Amino acid sequence: MQPLPQTGRRRVVIENVTPQVDGGRFAAKRVVGDMVVVQADVFADGHDEVRARLSWRHRNDASWHESEMEPLGNDRWQATFPVGDVGRYEFSVSGWVDHWRTWVHDLKKRVDAGQDVTVDLQIGARIVGTAASRATDADHASVLKQASGQLTTRAALDPGLSLLIDAYPDLTEATSLNAPLAVVVDPVRARFSAWYELFPRSASPDPKRHGTFDDVINQLDYVAGLGFDVLYLPPISPIGRQFRKGPDNREGGTAADPGVPWAIGGSTGGHTAVHAQLGDLGGFDRLVHAARTRGIEVALDIAFQASPDHPWVTEHPEWFRMRPDGTVQYAENPPKKYQDIYPFDFESTDWRGLWQALNEVFRFWIGHGVSIFRVDNPHTKPFAFWEWCINDIKASHPQALFLAEAFTRPKVMYRLAKVGFSQSYTYFTWRNNAVEMREYLEELTRPPVSDFFRPNFWPNTPDILHADLQTGGPAAFEARLVLAATLSSSYGIYGPAYELGESTAREPGSEEYLNSEKYQQRTWDLSGGARLRGLITRVNRARHAHPALQANERLLFHATDNPNLLAYSKNTDDQRDVILTVVNFDYHATQSGSIELDLAALGLPDDAPFEAVDLLDDQTYAWNGLRAWVKLDPEVRAGHVLWLRHLP
Amino acid sequence: MQPLPQTGRRRVVIENVTPQVDGGRFAAKRVVGDMVVVQADVFADGHDEVRARLSWRHRNDASWHESEMEPLGNDRWQATFPVGDVGRYEFSVSGWVDHWRTWVHDLKKRVDAGQDVTVDLQIGARIVGTAASRATDADHASVLKQASGQLTTRAALDPGLSLLIDAYPDLTEATSLNAPLAVVVDPVRARFSAWYELFPRSASPDPKRHGTFDDVINQLDYVAGLGFDVLYLPPISPIGRQFRKGPDNREGGTAADPGVPWAIGGSTGGHTAVHAQLGDLGGFDRLVHAARTRGIEVALDIAFQASPDHPWVTEHPEWFRMRPDGTVQYAENPPKKYQDIYPFDFESTDWRGLWQALNEVFRFWIGHGVSIFRVDNPHTKPFAFWEWCINDIKASHPQALFLAEAFTRPKVMYRLAKVGFSQSYTYFTWRNNAVEMREYLEELTRPPVSDFFRPNFWPNTPDILHADLQTGGPAAFEARLVLAATLSSSYGIYGPAYELGESTAREPGSEEYLNSEKYQQRTWDLSGGARLRGLITRVNRARHAHPALQANERLLFHATDNPNLLAYSKNTDDQRDVILTVVNFDYHATQSGSIELDLAALGLPDDAPFEAVDLLDDQTYAWNGLRAWVKLDPEVRAGHVLWLRHLP
Repeated sequence: MQPLPQTGRRRVVIENVTPQVDGGRFAAKRVVGDMVVVQADVFADGHDEVRARLSWRHRNDASWHESEMEPLGNDRWQATFPVGDVGRYEFSVSGWVDHWRTWVHDLKKRVDAGQDVTVDLQIGARIVGTAASRATDADHASVLKQASGQLTTRAALDPGLSLLIDAYPDLTEATSLNAPLAVVVDPVRARFSAWYELFPRSASPDPKRHGTFDDVINQLDYVAGLGFDVLYLPPISPIGRQFRKGPDNREGGTAADPGVPWAIGGSTGGHTAVHAQLGDLGGFDRLVHAARTRGIEVALDIAFQASPDHPWVTEHPEWFRMRPDGTVQYAENPPKKYQDIYPFDFESTDWRGLWQALNEVFRFWIGHGVSIFRVDNPHTKPFAFWEWCINDIKASHPQALFLAEAFTRPKVMYRLAKVGFSQSYTYFTWRNNAVEMREYLEELTRPPVSDFFRPNFWPNTPDILHADLQTGGPAAFEARLVLAATLSSSYGIYGPAYELGESTAREPGSEEYLNSEKYQQRTWDLSGGARLRGLITRVNRARHAHPALQANERLLFHATDNPNLLAYSKNTDDQRDVILTVVNFDYHATQSGSIELDLAALGLPDDAPFEAVDLLDDQTYAWNGLRAWVKLDPEVRAGHVLWLRHLP
Repeated sequence: MQPLPQTGRRRVVIENVTPQVDGGRFAAKRVVGDMVVVQADVFADGHDEVRARLSWRHRNDASWHESEMEPLGNDRWQATFPVGDVGRYEFSVSGWVDHWRTWVHDLKKRVDAGQDVTVDLQIGARIVGTAASRATDADHASVLKQASGQLTTRAALDPGLSLLIDAYPDLTEATSLNAPLAVVVDPVRARFSAWYELFPRSASPDPKRHGTFDDVINQLDYVAGLGFDVLYLPPISPIGRQFRKGPDNREGGTAADPGVPWAIGGSTGGHTAVHAQLGDLGGFDRLVHAARTRGIEVALDIAFQASPDHPWVTEHPEWFRMRPDGTVQYAENPPKKYQDIYPFDFESTDWRGLWQALNEVFRFWIGHGVSIFRVDNPHTKPFAFWEWCINDIKASHPQALFLAEAFTRPKVMYRLAKVGFSQSYTYFTWRNNAVEMREYLEELTRPPVSDFFRPNFWPNTPDILHADLQTGGPAAFEARLVLAATLSSSYGIYGPAYELGESTAREPGSEEYLNSEKYQQRTWDLSGGARLRGLITRVNRARHAHPALQANERLLFHATDNPNLLAYSKNTDDQRDVILTVVNFDYHATQSGSIELDLAALGLPDDAPFEAVDLLDDQTYAWNGLRAWVKLDPEVRAGHVLWLRHLP
């Protein structure tokens, strides 16, 4: 016969614990202040009473906290734990057969049936006696010992006795998970953030002068006024000179061209240096500080690649791939060649040295007050590197956030989130009708995806001017902004291009901007774009005032009878804050229709009127019942963001 | 910094491998002759070409077999392996970046663009050179070395060269699963079986004489004639005398009462002895042999509990729970007491001894030619025991099958299947309308459930005479039989009660039979029940003739416009055998309606007529298009089992 298991008397089994990502291979994600809801199937053979317990701790805690799980029915159990700090938490579930509760449960039935329970009381007394021997409190032990000595039906059914025995369960044969599961807790900003991306070099009011960090400081009030709380800057490191690109990515740029910020590294340094035309590290520090006083965090773009002028090219040639002709392998997407960019060789024999150097880049900027990193093309670096690097950084800097800029295949994007990225760019930009958008959001906002992947929705980026914006006019800009900001609790825009309605592509069919800031300095008239600026300000104000908009898990779609209209709500767990958004995907014609509201899910009455306040223009509508009729004229408005309120 | 992983250069990741039960904690189930379809997400960072390989072996094989996986798109890969033998198979998936294929892929683009590829060919030559150094075949090594020495574009793009290099991949940084996954392969009967349960004591044609094994031998032709291939006998061990029950489970039975076969053990022995009134072990051996010559396997009922007369009560009192008054704890469901049954105490300090003794019970009967066990109430014994016991038995007797008789909570039933039971009783009996039945089957016949849980559908058992059979008349008996036999590739009936239409309950509201054979001997007139016997014979013949009915994975429901009608099809992977079943759930009135056939899924033309042959009465219908109209009069027929054929 095969050997018997050591744990053959453990009768309880535990299955299907949530939250759990890939069988516990990765941590689930939460933010500070969340209650983590843990559920598990816990059951045993037979009909004995089972108990289950959740244990949890912050990784820095010496001891574990414990709480009793409650049965939900169908062998499912639940308990919650609060995550009050950033960092890594661990939790586990255990379960055991409770002989006392089983016995009490049976005793009641025997007594109800009028049976002689003399022998049963002797059995119960034994159980109480063993509890007495486990009691760590001397008074408790004494009470239990006494109860065991003279157990009567009345004493046995006294809830006080059961409570006391409950406190000293027999865990000898308790079953626990083989290994605890992990939850990474991030700052709230990981879930709720509004990003504004700008090119510092265009921040100068003087078209002839290269923008500086101080110019960006001067724009902070503008950005804060719009309601954004993350200011994201493309790379600020020295820009390479060799193979520098000219306007609109043309080859053969000159020294007069400002170059591409993603061509990292020049004679004055690499990833930890500052492009001299922007100022110096002191200027950057001032910007970080000035932003923070306005409630804005500066997010840096980390692009792990080098220009031919990067110091590492000569200091660490082993980190690059060498061609047989002795030159360094440049980036390629055959037949295209990007000779201004050298990728790192993660298959290098000195991959360890490379990993450590890249890790130091994050640490350097954390030392300069940066805690948010937008990581360029993480999908072209190994997953194992990111898993190690992000976990390592967060072990000492748990407040650090990492946004994955990967526009690639779905499984690759999800894997990056699993290995540690705090937020991710998405396919939002290419979901251009109500059906597609709903399907995509239902995937993103529900477990398992919502446990590890936090979307950050961008209506535009310097790389993506979608055809809808090229042709849809102001209504498209409005609609896409409202969608991004209300569907996803994190979103961002690339400005001032967005609020100024910049919509001209480099050429037909392209998603590249004409005169893209990636390749040249621009000057923006920030007094323009009043309509869109007003909308953005309103939307961001609504996001801050309404906790419903600060998370995604309670997103719910409501049926409409017009396929151009998308209607969805978000509310808070206590249903005290309910926001209904309706957007017209037709940017050229008025669309109207009725929405079938799931009133029960919204905590609204189905037999009394309630109020819908449009947070975009303060108009108030009196609604009643499950059908609401809306009409959206793109000339006037692209959508409603309605706060639904019980009437007093 | 935290330590770097040793495997930091392994760029490929593997996720979501199927089949996989609970993250690999349990084996998936298949039967001999199956092709196991393995899929996995396999991908790497960046844009390099990836390859993936399936490796697999029977546990007894010294070496692993390998096959290349094929990409299905969206980073999903697939390969299959045949399972030709019973026993445990293992499989794993590995993946790696293929630098040669990546290089060839890029070279083609460069050549197409007319670029100078001089340096690229030097890079390619290096890759060929490393392949040469890995080649285990001297000729191959020589060819590769030569190719490396003078690589031209033409040579590089020669598919022959790629095939050769493919054979010697660089697996230095290949990623594999941490541990192989398991598949347990059972005899085909685990998936496809028709069970007939009878009480041997009622097999005597003389009401005054207790039936014997030889009487059962005399009934074998009858059972075989009906088309069953498993003959299941309630326990055949000596029946206890103390607290023996009288007819209809009344207390105070006498020695003249035959007793309950599940009260295992008497003065002549316990689980490995034979009840003397049935004959002796020699008689049982004759029965097993006689059945096998007719293609029937005998299944034994194993009930792990003891009557007060079981030898173990005195030989192994430590395997029972003692009451404080010195008596043995009998079975209870307070306030009910079952004093004729002693449960085993799996929390005994000698649990190891108990486990081994129970294991020996199976081994004893395997020694007497039994390979199928119907296990009574497995859910009242620890899961850990079953996992060890079944795996241990199957390690030496991989052909053994175990049917779990657990009618309990869903998660408990599924866990029993996961730990090793080959088949399981189900809630089929209590799914009594078309909607419920469809929902239940869609759960059972799809992964993950279908990978570990094999349903065995029973329209009746000695414990369950459903109200539908009490009130539904012959139409109910027919309908439930057709449903069981065509929805599930394994099914069974308790006869002769079933085919003789026995429908009287012990009392109103009860699912117990009146004059139940569990407590008394019955005599059956096997010449009766002609209509139902005819149907059963037809249905079992159809099941044997049509491979579509021998598995569940391709069960598909088709919409009907009458909620009383359930329509579903099964077909084979190659779509060469298609069976459509239609059943009327209204046992009292004629119902008609049209079925909307999913012709594409059935491999049938949507623009040409096809033939529907009713396998129950040989009637043939000419059908055309996706709508078929049916009418079912319960006086005439409860359903159609239609073989759909292309017209020649």
